[in-house]
Amino acid sequence: MNLVNLQGKRILVTQADAFMGPVLCEVLAECGAKIIADTGPLLTPERIESLIQKTGHIDVLIANLAIPAPNTQAVEATDDEWESVFDHMVTPLPRLVRAVLPQMVERRAGKILLMGSASALRGMKRRSTYSAARGAQLAYVQSIGVEMAPLNIQVNAIAQNLVENPTYFPPEVQALPAFQERIKWEVPLGRLVSAREDASFAAYLCTTAANCFVGQIFPVCGGWVPR
Amino acid sequence: MNLVNLQGKRILVTQADAFMGPVLCEVLAECGAKIIADTGPLLTPERIESLIQKTGHIDVLIANLAIPAPNTQAVEATDDEWESVFDHMVTPLPRLVRAVLPQMVERRAGKILLMGSASALRGMKRRSTYSAARGAQLAYVQSIGVEMAPLNIQVNAIAQNLVENPTYFPPEVQALPAFQERIKWEVPLGRLVSAREDASFAAYLCTTAANCFVGQIFPVCGGWVPR
Amino acid sequence: MNLVNLQGKRILVTQADAFMGPVLCEVLAECGAKIIADTGPLLTPERIESLIQKTGHIDVLIANLAIPAPNTQAVEATDDEWESVFDHMVTPLPRLVRAVLPQMVERRAGKILLMGSASALRGMKRRSTYSAARGAQLAYVQSIGVEMAPLNIQVNAIAQNLVENPTYFPPEVQALPAFQERIKWEVPLGRLVSAREDASFAAYLCTTAANCFVGQIFPVCGGWVPR
Amino acid sequence: MNLVNLQGKRILVTQADAFMGPVLCEVLAECGAKIIADTGPLLTPERIESLIQKTGHIDVLIANLAIPAPNTQAVEATDDEWESVFDHMVTPLPRLVRAVLPQMVERRAGKILLMGSASALRGMKRRSTYSAARGAQLAYVQSIGVEMAPLNIQVNAIAQNLVENPTYFPPEVQALPAFQERIKWEVPLGRLVSAREDASFAAYLCTTAANCFVGQIFPVCGGWVPR
Repeated sequence: MNLVNLQGKRILVTQADAFMGPVLCEVLAECGAKIIADTGPLLTPERIESLIQKTGHIDVLIANLAIPAPNTQAVEATDDEWESVFDHMVTPLPRLVRAVLPQMVERRAGKILLMGSASALRGMKRRSTYSAARGAQLAYVQSIGVEMAPLNIQVNAIAQNLVENPTYFPPEVQALPAFQERIKWEVPLGRLVSAREDASFAAYLCTTAANCFVGQIFPVCGGWVPR
Repeated sequence: MNLVNLQGKRILVTQADAFMGPVLCEVLAECGAKIIADTGPLLTPERIESLIQKTGHIDVLIANLAIPAPNTQAVEATDDEWESVFDHMVTPLPRLVRAVLPQMVERRAGKILLMGSASALRGMKRRSTYSAARGAQLAYVQSIGVEMAPLNIQVNAIAQNLVENPTYFPPEVQALPAFQERIKWEVPLGRLVSAREDASFAAYLCTTAANCFVGQIFPVCGGWVPR
Repeated sequence: MNLVNLQGKRILVTQADAFMGPVLCEVLAECGAKIIADTGPLLTPERIESLIQKTGHIDVLIANLAIPAPNTQAVEATDDEWESVFDHMVTPLPRLVRAVLPQMVERRAGKILLMGSASALRGMKRRSTYSAARGAQLAYVQSIGVEMAPLNIQVNAIAQNLVENPTYFPPEVQALPAFQERIKWEVPLGRLVSAREDASFAAYLCTTAANCFVGQIFPVCGGWVPR
Repeated sequence: MNLVNLQGKRILVTQADAFMGPVLCEVLAECGAKIIADTGPLLTPERIESLIQKTGHIDVLIANLAIPAPNTQAVEATDDEWESVFDHMVTPLPRLVRAVLPQMVERRAGKILLMGSASALRGMKRRSTYSAARGAQLAYVQSIGVEMAPLNIQVNAIAQNLVENPTYFPPEVQALPAFQERIKWEVPLGRLVSAREDASFAAYLCTTAANCFVGQIFPVCGGWVPR
């Protein structure tokens, strides 16, 4: 038996060339899914509506929304930083959900999976704007998840951190003694989570076997947050 | 000994005529604090900066930010709703924090307490926009809390729900059978939390005895969320 | 690709005829695992040591420990009840772990999965003894998980509730109006989690794709606990 | 107004000469409480029953149960260690609760506060037995708390760690570079929580102002666990 059989499933991955996009497309395709990999901007409602319309049938929406996390002290986080982070990571989310839900409601089937961040679950210095945006995402998913569950639509989130990816942890960063120290003290796993481990878990959450999860937040961060 | 002695403390309460504002002003004043009760709008950075400047010395900022929670299905939550809720509850928060932190940093002392919501900790139907905004607040507090702790500035949050207040639970609502049913099933306390219980806890968190809390979220909701 | 490929894996399931035992054996075998289904008592260290020795190579230990949950008020929970529940659900766990770890440590590979309960994550009336025992299990798993992670041994737990099983939810219980009321108010999923959904998730956690999880507790309860 | 007025309250503190006992007795007395400081053993039901009977009227029971935490690897944690830790920290708890509840139920008033540990909320190496015992305590408190809330009896817990106390953090330990490193990496507060901060919070939870908390677990650990 193949538990993670996504044969015939049409999965839309947003920002498919950023954050977890590439590895998600790869792993989900290996599991048999038909991937619609969007790399367009998500900054206007019109673009989002046309994306969903153009895509047609969507079994699973993977809301992979990302922007490099600003590294600024609280007092230095400008309005511009805040606006930019929320414009890219927060505002598109309800627009995507509103656009994709009607077809799922009609079919009484569908899934939305947010690739979120554990930075909303544990405080980090110099990450206030980013954490706030990620916190909005997770709370939104919890709420929509509870609302949609009776219609057999599952809305859940991965809250990741310390997952291998070229943006945050390029080889030169991984070679730094400070990085090794951080892993030693903060990551019980003793290493980064691999991109494929993260994407595999996402793939599992796309299956019908995972129909029982409701607005749930799954930390994937090597033990950086306990639960 | 009086553990909750706020004698001589200058506490700024925002939206002092809304949400938990009135009871906070009452209880904090009873504990000896000098209350600066602001009832002005918080929609522009200029207004916020001038408020902080005009107020002068602030020992504790109580970020009491509220707007009636929209009661809309996910698919009906418009961009306007989203913008309005975030403009009132989310965007003002970092502006307030940025404006008030410099004097606290200089004194190596100060507290910020957010009157937040447990709706960010447990999914609720028809509350997606509101929950998202509340989630942004809580994650922001966690992050700022960790960043500011070494400077002896405590940033924490109450995450409340099912607290007596005239906006959400007027007597006519409390008289409804549906309300009684909800209390029975969802609130282990068996009643609403009283406004004074909530404000008293806030008062405790304003004391120096509470200097040990770091970006912590305290549910005050009669057991509606377990932790 | 088959993400949940357990071909060649030797998995020991304890109390294989109770709680989640039967469905676990079924689903894990479907995924290719070689199941060692133990139905013997676990009340003495000798029996546990001989079980592990007799079993030989164990890739995954599924600690499926169960006893019908006593339904008693706090003041009526006797010492006998406490002792019986802890003897069956708590004391065997470290004995199993101690017996199975050496071979896993030697191979620098192995997994232990506890089939735990969400009753340790959210308070329930008349379940104090049972909840306490389940709480001991989960905290133990968190601790062992962190300790074993550097050795490539993954120790995690499912914290389930409201999962279909003949002991707690036989058809006659499911037919009761009180049960329907409870589902409506307490279970956002709107139904019980199916036994196969629960076992499928357990199967996923047995794969190498799940090597990134460290002492993590996964609620599987239809949204009964938020996180 | 004095929010933490315990004048006339009779508070029983167990193991009053160990763990948080001394500072609790000191701070609670300063708040006006009449302290009954027990230093007797709690290893038999008879001793516990006679303690409660001898004490008479008890407004608040502070279940301060402690034993030095064994520092042993998972595979080295013997049955004897397990039994000793559970005998001292777990088994006495329901016995104390059963003995003290009847008078509280009759008066429809009373409080039980457990001085628990955050080691049950976040995994620690070489602390498996201790964490398990602490996990049993917390889950028990959650359950009893929900059961007793409708009778106006509040049962809650502090889950502490990294609180100043002579047993775990004597001056010579605090002077070690390894300790400083740990504080830097693991404790956002940047220092130990002081014993009086911890006891003051406990005092607050003993007041009628805290009647709204139900089976709640309050981390007091300088941010070592996020929530």
